Amino acid sequence: MTAPSAQLLSNPRSERVRQVAALGRRAARDKQGRFLVEGPQAVRELLRYAAHAAEALYLTPAAARRHTEIVGAAGEAGVRTQECTEQVLAAMADTGHPQGMVAVARRIDVPLGRALEAVGESGFAVVLTHVRDPGNAGTVLRGADAFGAAAVLVSEASVDVYNPKVVRSTVGSLFHLPVSTGTPVTDLLEACRHRGIRLLAADGSGPTTLPEADLTGPHAWVMGNEAWGLEPEVLALCDEVVSIPIQRAESLNLAMAATVCLHASAASQPLGASGDLSAGKPS
Amino acid sequence: MTAPSAQLLSNPRSERVRQVAALGRRAARDKQGRFLVEGPQAVRELLRYAAHAAEALYLTPAAARRHTEIVGAAGEAGVRTQECTEQVLAAMADTGHPQGMVAVARRIDVPLGRALEAVGESGFAVVLTHVRDPGNAGTVLRGADAFGAAAVLVSEASVDVYNPKVVRSTVGSLFHLPVSTGTPVTDLLEACRHRGIRLLAADGSGPTTLPEADLTGPHAWVMGNEAWGLEPEVLALCDEVVSIPIQRAESLNLAMAATVCLHASAASQPLGASGDLSAGKPS
Repeated sequence: MTAPSAQLLSNPRSERVRQVAALGRRAARDKQGRFLVEGPQAVRELLRYAAHAAEALYLTPAAARRHTEIVGAAGEAGVRTQECTEQVLAAMADTGHPQGMVAVARRIDVPLGRALEAVGESGFAVVLTHVRDPGNAGTVLRGADAFGAAAVLVSEASVDVYNPKVVRSTVGSLFHLPVSTGTPVTDLLEACRHRGIRLLAADGSGPTTLPEADLTGPHAWVMGNEAWGLEPEVLALCDEVVSIPIQRAESLNLAMAATVCLHASAASQPLGASGDLSAGKPS
Repeated sequence: MTAPSAQLLSNPRSERVRQVAALGRRAARDKQGRFLVEGPQAVRELLRYAAHAAEALYLTPAAARRHTEIVGAAGEAGVRTQECTEQVLAAMADTGHPQGMVAVARRIDVPLGRALEAVGESGFAVVLTHVRDPGNAGTVLRGADAFGAAAVLVSEASVDVYNPKVVRSTVGSLFHLPVSTGTPVTDLLEACRHRGIRLLAADGSGPTTLPEADLTGPHAWVMGNEAWGLEPEVLALCDEVVSIPIQRAESLNLAMAATVCLHASAASQPLGASGDLSAGKPS
């Protein structure tokens, strides 16, 4: 077990602090192959589900005293733990309130082939293409996690899932299921088709309504941009275009639509196919 | 038709500007009985669905040229229209980007009895109690609108639906269906029971799962606080406590849970019972 370093990190302008803070920017994340995990809840989930990817934990002495189980888990995983001042932590974090701790982790996305394998013969996945809002991407990841999706496939043109705002809004879901990133959308969809995964475009133009859609075999929900939806060439590659019956146009946003579609997929799964279903408390 | 006043409002510190800006605060909204509607999309919906409540429209000359249909609708409704500078608009608006216009409207909530009447013999409603986040309240209002709920019943202890952040995040849904506010939660639930409206608490502790819940008769979903859910005395007044089957606890937030529950109610409605169902495009 690695004990917290005795030396308190106190210079917010040091090279080390600058390197961590740089992870707030996509270019630095891509170059370093690392990302920021902020706050006790997200750090706890990182250490529980993806400890192999955790590299360093920075926290205030107060947070170290308050969260001894996190410090213990970091030690067991061989994660370098460093106490630092509030000012250093504020300089490192993307959010104003990292609640006393920030971790640095290596990218955890998996190759597309491995994510598709996880879908297997009966699972379902979600494809994000041109989704730009970090909060929406985070909610879709939470929904995928909650409803037992086998994988999340993020196309090249979407928001970076390692954006600190996405990481925060997934509340740990990012670490719970295989996520693949960076594939151009047409290649991604072709790879799904090749594996026998039916592609269901979630789009208000859909002639098929959600209750009519066949959700029994392996399938993937394809979610498009917040403002302009799915591009014609993406729609052309999908097997079906599915709309959610609603009372008034434009009253569902992307996160709500994804939640409803993923819930429908979960409800169509044979019982027990995707592990234990337990009831969760809304938060 | 009222033409825009020729005199450009240009002093951001004038008494009139201060009175409008004060509507960003709950105390002033409660005292004046008025609220702010910001941006062309929300103003358009206000004039379309609740023009009787619209009192004044403030906009920049550029916005007036760009949105002649809104200026026309305001004129037809007898709404006082006043052009103003960007600075005046920024001083009035709660958001940094009101996109050139702000309207002032009188409260549009209806008495509880009228909202319950709207539920009638076969409709459904949603009850918000101790919901504190404006974005969550806004999403629940959008979901209620999208899925054809008959009414939204907001208890005394919840976020103010006239909070500019709620108004913005409903994207007009606030004007589409009857909303009742300010009733203490126990009185509100008793009134529902008295009308034969079954109360379904949405709570992860629920022994009934969503697929098992009977959604055929008049019913209301009761949604609680983001952090601590529903209070014991609220749960005790509900007919059933319903949980959404999920893979992992704490992966659904309040807005997602409400979306799934309201969608389930819509899907259980006899066809045509709640008006025309049209397919909408996620935004």
